[in-house]
Amino acid sequence: MDIVVVGSVAFDTVETPFGKADEVLGGSATYFSLSASFFAKVGMVAVVGKDFPDEHIKMLEEKGIDTAGIEKKDGSTFRWKGRYDYDLNQAHTLETHLNVFEHFNPTLPESYRKAPFVFLANIDPELQLKVLEQVEAPRLVACDTMNFWIEGKPSELREVLKRVELFVINEAEAREFAGEPSLVKAARKIMDCGPRILIIKRGEYGALMFNGSSVFSAPAYPLEDVFDPTGAGDSFAGGLMGYLAYTNDLSEQNIRKAIVMGSVMASFNVEDFSLNRLRAISCDDIRARYTEFKQLTYFEDV
Amino acid sequence: MDIVVVGSVAFDTVETPFGKADEVLGGSATYFSLSASFFAKVGMVAVVGKDFPDEHIKMLEEKGIDTAGIEKKDGSTFRWKGRYDYDLNQAHTLETHLNVFEHFNPTLPESYRKAPFVFLANIDPELQLKVLEQVEAPRLVACDTMNFWIEGKPSELREVLKRVELFVINEAEAREFAGEPSLVKAARKIMDCGPRILIIKRGEYGALMFNGSSVFSAPAYPLEDVFDPTGAGDSFAGGLMGYLAYTNDLSEQNIRKAIVMGSVMASFNVEDFSLNRLRAISCDDIRARYTEFKQLTYFEDV
Repeated sequence: MDIVVVGSVAFDTVETPFGKADEVLGGSATYFSLSASFFAKVGMVAVVGKDFPDEHIKMLEEKGIDTAGIEKKDGSTFRWKGRYDYDLNQAHTLETHLNVFEHFNPTLPESYRKAPFVFLANIDPELQLKVLEQVEAPRLVACDTMNFWIEGKPSELREVLKRVELFVINEAEAREFAGEPSLVKAARKIMDCGPRILIIKRGEYGALMFNGSSVFSAPAYPLEDVFDPTGAGDSFAGGLMGYLAYTNDLSEQNIRKAIVMGSVMASFNVEDFSLNRLRAISCDDIRARYTEFKQLTYFEDV
Repeated sequence: MDIVVVGSVAFDTVETPFGKADEVLGGSATYFSLSASFFAKVGMVAVVGKDFPDEHIKMLEEKGIDTAGIEKKDGSTFRWKGRYDYDLNQAHTLETHLNVFEHFNPTLPESYRKAPFVFLANIDPELQLKVLEQVEAPRLVACDTMNFWIEGKPSELREVLKRVELFVINEAEAREFAGEPSLVKAARKIMDCGPRILIIKRGEYGALMFNGSSVFSAPAYPLEDVFDPTGAGDSFAGGLMGYLAYTNDLSEQNIRKAIVMGSVMASFNVEDFSLNRLRAISCDDIRARYTEFKQLTYFEDV
């Protein structure tokens, strides 16, 4: 087991300017795991309802993902319904039914506890803390969050950040968390709370990494159409953590490569609904797009 | 004469979250010229009123800028008053007094007509066309525009675009011009109108260049504070055209370097009001920041 991820598994109903998908497989842990599975062995910690079909579990296992941490409970699986308009950076939530996710109490199987890489996807910071109590000296703990927790559980979130080395957050939420319009100043404030490495996700504008005094700007892939942005952030985190686990190298230069790998995985993910694209691509596709990212940003010295 | 620029010279009154500047020197031709003057010999085509002090002309000439094309007319110089809130990508115009600029009829001095590089800053497309009638076989013609002309003079603007090789435009205006939310599709539509090279300015997110089938993504410099964004786009264009004229090389790789040079100049410009920063920096400062841009974006192959 290289990476443990804790997060949601959900059925999503999504409408975008390009079409509609009904009750398709989604959730932060699912997107993360499928993306990371190209690079490393992932164990999922999540909860599903009795309505969750075995075929999904089987699909995850066929991708080499360990599903021993997915608990099946009485009730229905978490459901999310959302819409994107032409501004695909902005999801409009239409319905949320937490169902079994409401009483999610993440419990790590014994075999997960020594995993060197841990990713706490965007869930209640109290649950993120519960996971941290169950892991034994991981090499790298990373987490994500959202405005809902920044506003609703600020002190719990700060507790998490004290114990996290790598923090991944959206641009607007970084500014909100820090109460600071300047992104560079906001980054410094956030890093004062604990994380040594901060990655700010900017949607179609790429990502910025702050690592000590170093800053790295990664572009996004200029896609003709972003078909469905759902799961982009978690696919990004999956590629990032997957590549770090695969290389087991936390140097500045390797984290930069991992961020580009995360951007590669996110760029594939948004090309279709649900996990369709991540299920279809090969390692060759990933390598080819990484090369395209290189060409996209390369310029010579003067 | 390496570059001819036609545009505005203005007195700006600007308020930002960081302070206020009253009746300071501005205008697209001014920002462009001062930025380009670090690389090449620029001739300005513009109009000012009798109130325009000789000290400004002297300052421009001390920077090596040819001011023979600045016409002094009865009346007052163009004045613009604007405000920026914390979203520094968005200028709020409070007052515009065109004054002598209202009847601007650009006339190129004889010595300007054979300039190999021509930049048509954001002015009435009819005036841009008048300038093109006065130049003799330039090597590269570039232009900028804005929503005001896209909406008010669409057919004249299309006429300009047929005769322009390099088109520089803001992201929102690119989408508006093309009537297309996908930036990649919008780029293709715009290039179908004439320009071989399209540079889309994205403010704090950098710039995207489309050149044939190649795409280049340039980052913006992550400044702690953008003090005053006025003139950022024109400083960008000045660095870009200045570097192209200096190197006289229109290869893909050299245009990429020129775009980064433009980004370097824009990043300096926004660090202070008016032209204060561009007047203070040295060639060493420019080289050092170019190197920082390189470090900001570099990542290794996998």
